[in-house]
Amino acid sequence: MAFVLHARLAADTAAIADWPLSRVLVMNDNRFAWIVLVPRRPDVSEFFDLDDASRSILTNEITRVAKGTKAWAHARGGCDKINIGMIGNLVPQLHVHMVARNKGDVAWPGTVWGVGKAIPYRAAELARVVAELRETL
Amino acid sequence: MAFVLHARLAADTAAIADWPLSRVLVMNDNRFAWIVLVPRRPDVSEFFDLDDASRSILTNEITRVAKGTKAWAHARGGCDKINIGMIGNLVPQLHVHMVARNKGDVAWPGTVWGVGKAIPYRAAELARVVAELRETL
Repeated sequence: MAFVLHARLAADTAAIADWPLSRVLVMNDNRFAWIVLVPRRPDVSEFFDLDDASRSILTNEITRVAKGTKAWAHARGGCDKINIGMIGNLVPQLHVHMVARNKGDVAWPGTVWGVGKAIPYRAAELARVVAELRETL
Repeated sequence: MAFVLHARLAADTAAIADWPLSRVLVMNDNRFAWIVLVPRRPDVSEFFDLDDASRSILTNEITRVAKGTKAWAHARGGCDKINIGMIGNLVPQLHVHMVARNKGDVAWPGTVWGVGKAIPYRAAELARVVAELRETL
């Protein structure tokens, strides 16, 4: 069975790249520097559903995104902490959130999931963000 | 510098074991089957602050806890999804949450962080939970 990105993730994000394991997405939400990794494997829901080799690759990709998101967020105004989450209560397809947080953001010190409504980027902004992230990550 | 468990984590949890990298803790909150891993390394806040070898061990320990917590939660009544989070907005010491979630729990489908107040186990219950987790994880 082929990998197909979950419709909800497709609707909420823009694509940055396909890495060895994961599709790299940016959440279309101007409030946060927020990246999502989705392992391009069918029928994987839990972190432990991945085989050991894939899990190791995912760990490397999470590390790469977390560092890159921190750098990108610094350029946008700040990053006090990177939040990493694998939740999946609504979208069962395994995906990993990496969100740059700072003390001035609207959800601090809580988590971002389910907080308020996303503020989509304007089209030109989103194109710029995607280009920046292709450079930075 | 030696590893010292953050005071807030020490106050909110009971100790299960020390594994090769991490201290394994159970959150003293009867509402959720909720385990926390804390790498026993001083001055580590972000996942990418760990060296590669330690990060690989942590990934294995996360996998072990996630599987074990799912099994343990099944025996308590259910587990529809394991949530994994590295947040650290309030407690800067790197720690990983693994929470067994089910559709009947008080926070579903949201995340557990910051939701309501913990309901501590009674002393005898907590002792039983610790003993069960020493067997299961």
